[in-house]
Amino acid sequence: MTIKSQELISAAITAQKTRTFYASWPENPKAYAEDANAKGLEAFQKMLNTDFSELHENPHRGRIGEEISPYMMLGLGIKYPQYGAEELIRYAKEVSSVWAKVSKEERASILIESLENISNRFFELAYATMHTTGQAFMMSFQASGPHSNDRAMEVISMAYEEMSRFQEEVNWVKNMGKFDLTLRKTFKTIPRGIGLVIGCSTFPTWNTVPGLYANLMAGNPVIVKPHPKSILPIAIVVAEIQNALKNAGISPNVVQLGADTSKQQITKELAEHKDVKLIDYTGGSAFGDYLEKIPGKITFTEKAGVNSVILESVKNPEPIFGNIAFSASLYSGQMCTAPQNIFISESGIQTENGNLSFDECASQIANAVKALVENPKAGPHTLGAIQNDLTINRVEAAKKSATVILDSIAVVNPEFPEARIKSPVVMVTDAENTDAWRHECFGPAIFIIKTKSAAHSLELASNAALELGAITCLCYSQDEEFMNQTAEIMNGSFTPVSFNFNGAAFVNQHAAFSDFHVTGGNPSGNAGFTNPEYVNRRFVWVGNRYA
Amino acid sequence: MTIKSQELISAAITAQKTRTFYASWPENPKAYAEDANAKGLEAFQKMLNTDFSELHENPHRGRIGEEISPYMMLGLGIKYPQYGAEELIRYAKEVSSVWAKVSKEERASILIESLENISNRFFELAYATMHTTGQAFMMSFQASGPHSNDRAMEVISMAYEEMSRFQEEVNWVKNMGKFDLTLRKTFKTIPRGIGLVIGCSTFPTWNTVPGLYANLMAGNPVIVKPHPKSILPIAIVVAEIQNALKNAGISPNVVQLGADTSKQQITKELAEHKDVKLIDYTGGSAFGDYLEKIPGKITFTEKAGVNSVILESVKNPEPIFGNIAFSASLYSGQMCTAPQNIFISESGIQTENGNLSFDECASQIANAVKALVENPKAGPHTLGAIQNDLTINRVEAAKKSATVILDSIAVVNPEFPEARIKSPVVMVTDAENTDAWRHECFGPAIFIIKTKSAAHSLELASNAALELGAITCLCYSQDEEFMNQTAEIMNGSFTPVSFNFNGAAFVNQHAAFSDFHVTGGNPSGNAGFTNPEYVNRRFVWVGNRYA
Repeated sequence: MTIKSQELISAAITAQKTRTFYASWPENPKAYAEDANAKGLEAFQKMLNTDFSELHENPHRGRIGEEISPYMMLGLGIKYPQYGAEELIRYAKEVSSVWAKVSKEERASILIESLENISNRFFELAYATMHTTGQAFMMSFQASGPHSNDRAMEVISMAYEEMSRFQEEVNWVKNMGKFDLTLRKTFKTIPRGIGLVIGCSTFPTWNTVPGLYANLMAGNPVIVKPHPKSILPIAIVVAEIQNALKNAGISPNVVQLGADTSKQQITKELAEHKDVKLIDYTGGSAFGDYLEKIPGKITFTEKAGVNSVILESVKNPEPIFGNIAFSASLYSGQMCTAPQNIFISESGIQTENGNLSFDECASQIANAVKALVENPKAGPHTLGAIQNDLTINRVEAAKKSATVILDSIAVVNPEFPEARIKSPVVMVTDAENTDAWRHECFGPAIFIIKTKSAAHSLELASNAALELGAITCLCYSQDEEFMNQTAEIMNGSFTPVSFNFNGAAFVNQHAAFSDFHVTGGNPSGNAGFTNPEYVNRRFVWVGNRYA
Repeated sequence: MTIKSQELISAAITAQKTRTFYASWPENPKAYAEDANAKGLEAFQKMLNTDFSELHENPHRGRIGEEISPYMMLGLGIKYPQYGAEELIRYAKEVSSVWAKVSKEERASILIESLENISNRFFELAYATMHTTGQAFMMSFQASGPHSNDRAMEVISMAYEEMSRFQEEVNWVKNMGKFDLTLRKTFKTIPRGIGLVIGCSTFPTWNTVPGLYANLMAGNPVIVKPHPKSILPIAIVVAEIQNALKNAGISPNVVQLGADTSKQQITKELAEHKDVKLIDYTGGSAFGDYLEKIPGKITFTEKAGVNSVILESVKNPEPIFGNIAFSASLYSGQMCTAPQNIFISESGIQTENGNLSFDECASQIANAVKALVENPKAGPHTLGAIQNDLTINRVEAAKKSATVILDSIAVVNPEFPEARIKSPVVMVTDAENTDAWRHECFGPAIFIIKTKSAAHSLELASNAALELGAITCLCYSQDEEFMNQTAEIMNGSFTPVSFNFNGAAFVNQHAAFSDFHVTGGNPSGNAGFTNPEYVNRRFVWVGNRYA
């Protein structure tokens, strides 16, 4: 392994153990070369209406591609090679024994090389992400660039640590009374088999690279099945891993891109195939539940969750409402970590200036959203664009279930006048009206829910987490006892709690090396980035004994 | 935590990492007090035909017990409290939040105290095990005594290490350019929920304590559901854990014994209950497969396997055949690690004195078995007794499928003339006759299988492991290339290989702290004692963030 790779892994392992901040690549675009942005944009534009030619190609069935930019509302016209499930699996099987024999040190070097090369394309990746997901530029840059690379680096280091955990060879000596019984023993990790990593439309790299790199580190060949509407960002990542493999003299088929079309998806055929042993998935709950039930597979899922805000008491409400408004508006609520349900007691909340009624809270939250989205400097860049029409329809339907106190506002992005934008709809409802709020309404929809008390708010949030899943919870309280109760009860529902976030701390953000993303304990998913089991279930320890 | 507990854990962690020998308790009965054996026997005898009164009792439905000594062929007459599944779960739920709040240090202290107290009852446990399982005295003593305690100590230390893995509290500082964003973060492990641990009839403690102690360390209350025919040994263990809990002022309901009867089993009702989150199981494959498919559970299974011996070449065949005969005869083949299928090429094997034909090999193996079981000093103590009649019937039925070259020999145990004894049946068959050998024939049955070549033997053993499961593989070869091939191919079937075992090294024995028992990669089970995932799937990491 190169010294640099070793240093990166050591630093990452330390950061993970101590849960402290660590970044392999700067998240500020200004830290990169002055012309990097322009070059990235140019590279992206050059790819439009062409065949994506960077991937290693096996004999294929032609080319497909149906990506549409939510900013331009035009097809990107980029075409990817199309393969059948059987072909992808055959190529993966052909390389599996070769990749299994590559040492963990060499695997790590190859994968880190791919990350270095990806880091030279962060701007290109940012534009690819913008024009497939609808994320604003800054989020696209950070989420698909440095933050995604950090998540990949995190699993590389975790897998490296786990795979180094036991001595590889030992003389085992047991005293038998009159003599010693000595056996030479060897221990190694055996890869599980082919890994299928299924991407989502909103975070095509950030949510895909952990499973992808974890499988590769463990020695498993991978088939990446991207969402048909968000292929380009992960295609660039796969191409760079293939380049690093080729540089090391290893078949690029160790990782393949299995792009398909909405009308002819190959996901089920791949997932149910007997040779696919590992499945990673980010997306809706129904399909995730189906995947989890396929016998004989090890699945890692991130599904839907219903995230809560519990408002009990605050010092100064204004920055708090601003913080909530931003978190709920960021990428128009199309984040799995975005808050959806805000629980407030019918008696309102305590502030340093006395009681603030439920109605006051609701209208001030609505005002904070309005102020944010109507701010021409902040609005468009916070909202981004809506990835697909289903999200628009979902939010429109939700409006019938509760009292709308702020409808979507016409926001124009001057750079992209055609962009599909929908600012958050803020609704108020009673806790009893569970049809309105007690399911995930993915997208720009906020429910402010009137409860009997703060304790009732906590109870509703906790039950929703246990039964429907939750990835985040935001709690505002000045009462230490209530905070401790909230921590205990929400954690007992396998949901992390962020307390009294304001300023630049947002509940949506889960940092690599520090925040476990999804606990794996409630219905929002069965796995978490990146706890030990996220990597060590991808290989098997086997020991041999020699007399 | 007591200093002694801390020292034990540290030593165990080191032994695990280095996979070296470590024993918390001596395995030689002579290392214990001179009168310990007599006292243990007396304690066991006193329990016969009485109510087992050591357990904490909740209001119950009466008493049950149907254990039969395979040595005396008489009922033990010991009666245990009977509970319904709902009651057991209700008591477990009542204590779950209390046990969740106990620190890992205190949990470890309590559990180690229970092991210390169990170690004072190793002889009593040995007699309890003999007279439920049919194991001979020495195996009963070692397997249910020191070796079982060692396996428990192993999971305690592994869980302790995993739960100490990340910093519990940290100030997370991220430079945001003009200012630092600082968050206080806390990280803790949350128990998954109620654990159900289902025991088997042949190793009622050794196979049960790993899941039991792992669940308890992780903070999960446990319901132990023993096999109706093998309750006493684990009842003693549960009673000692309850005593240690009571000493610490904690409700003994943290661990409950859910004894049932063959006719009215509560296993399915417990396993399917929504509040049972974790299931540990040792036993047949059909029931194990059913358990693995119950949605929403995390299961750890050890099921059936078909273990192979691959005979390619040896120096001196005599001690080798003796070693195989002993491994296959030990506890009459009622060990999940016992060899069943011996693959030999039709051209025989190379020895230092030239070629030994297939038929010669077969007859010498049969002779070695005969010599062992007919040796009055070794035979009865190697064979033990047959746990139940199904095993007798299975072996009798198997005789119709192949050519018997050694039938069961009448062996008398002078101490227990009524003992249910059946010495191994040695059969020969062609590889094509898969109906004979290609399934687990649990019990005293050995198939010697004629193959086309050593490579063919390896192929058959490997395919059987992948498709039917295997827990062990024994290979005899003087050819380094063949040994390497065998290691690669059998390990690729997630099966450990023991090479050229002779003398006191037996393939059946999997030592705590060193040998992973069951890899979890093939159909013989989905979990292994004790790899990291065996403990870290029993709790969930959750982090909170404070602005």
